[in-house]
Amino acid sequence: MKLVIGNKNYSSWSLRPWLAIKVAGLPFVEINHDLYADNARAERLRYGPTGKVPVLIDGDVAIWETPAIAEYLAEIEPALWPADRSARAVARAVCAEMHAGFTVLRTRCPMDVQLRTRLDVDEALVAELERLTALWADCKARFGAGGDFLFGRFSHADAFFAPVATRIRSYGLPVSQAAQAYADTLLALPAFLEWETAAAREVRRA
Amino acid sequence: MKLVIGNKNYSSWSLRPWLAIKVAGLPFVEINHDLYADNARAERLRYGPTGKVPVLIDGDVAIWETPAIAEYLAEIEPALWPADRSARAVARAVCAEMHAGFTVLRTRCPMDVQLRTRLDVDEALVAELERLTALWADCKARFGAGGDFLFGRFSHADAFFAPVATRIRSYGLPVSQAAQAYADTLLALPAFLEWETAAAREVRRA
Repeated sequence: MKLVIGNKNYSSWSLRPWLAIKVAGLPFVEINHDLYADNARAERLRYGPTGKVPVLIDGDVAIWETPAIAEYLAEIEPALWPADRSARAVARAVCAEMHAGFTVLRTRCPMDVQLRTRLDVDEALVAELERLTALWADCKARFGAGGDFLFGRFSHADAFFAPVATRIRSYGLPVSQAAQAYADTLLALPAFLEWETAAAREVRRA
Repeated sequence: MKLVIGNKNYSSWSLRPWLAIKVAGLPFVEINHDLYADNARAERLRYGPTGKVPVLIDGDVAIWETPAIAEYLAEIEPALWPADRSARAVARAVCAEMHAGFTVLRTRCPMDVQLRTRLDVDEALVAELERLTALWADCKARFGAGGDFLFGRFSHADAFFAPVATRIRSYGLPVSQAAQAYADTLLALPAFLEWETAAAREVRRA
């Protein structure tokens, strides 16, 4: 399999399947795409029909959209979803909520792994951070026994929230102590540290 | 299982899992929620944590977010996804693209099953309609043999695009002949006709 990803400092959607495939230990070739190069969009359109990354390529099929890549990887490594049916359903719900929601957080606080600043948060952002911490707390309380992750052991749900953990750190976002501890757990994953080291070598677009 | 859905004339997200569960022939109880009632949001928050519909309730688990409901139903009735692994991956990709994308179409042309008008389309909407028709043509060309639907027989992908078929009709949107034929196929599904009959009995908010 080949995984086409964008610049590691900036491409939050690329981080998600990359982290999952790494933690699952599945063999893959990484194709690095520079989102800011001339003709970048034309190059991306060679990989997938929407001109976006990430794209997973397996033989003659190209899979765009991170949720679809996540399901494809989980068909190969089922441990990427919780084993319990109810937990799995909720894990998919929170991933879908992340995929189409949290628009204020995503717009106001774009991922920039190297950045360290402090953002003044307004009401709209606070509301999303409250939903985020409630979501994390609910998953951990109901399904998190036996591990440090939302559903106990690592799952796609954690991969989907890893970019959020970098945003909490980069922008100094106010979250509960429990949410901060969970974000720190994500940022200490060996696979994330590998991503971060590569991101730190990239030139920032200040 | 109980499926909480909004007003049939308006709730495009509710139509998707409702259509899938009907076509799959799975037993369920329909809970009708009036999106426009006083305290509607408070009532929705009793069903799910985001205060949105649809929500699927199975025993003690509530599943919000349509993509998660779709996967839950497909675990019970696998025929809701294409049997072929590559086709299934692409079906999930187009559903995810619909879930988080086509924002101009969704904003400019909200579902209103009873509505018949003609909208002047601008460049942004034309671009999305072009992507839509290309997406439909690609699925049908690569995976549609042996049936009238995107992947041959009916799948979640068709359920996800059913509200778009109503928008094409309601707003007189310009699409290719092939796309129009596919939209007409969706609008002629017995399950859709049942939804439409119920939608026609609802009071329109003109």
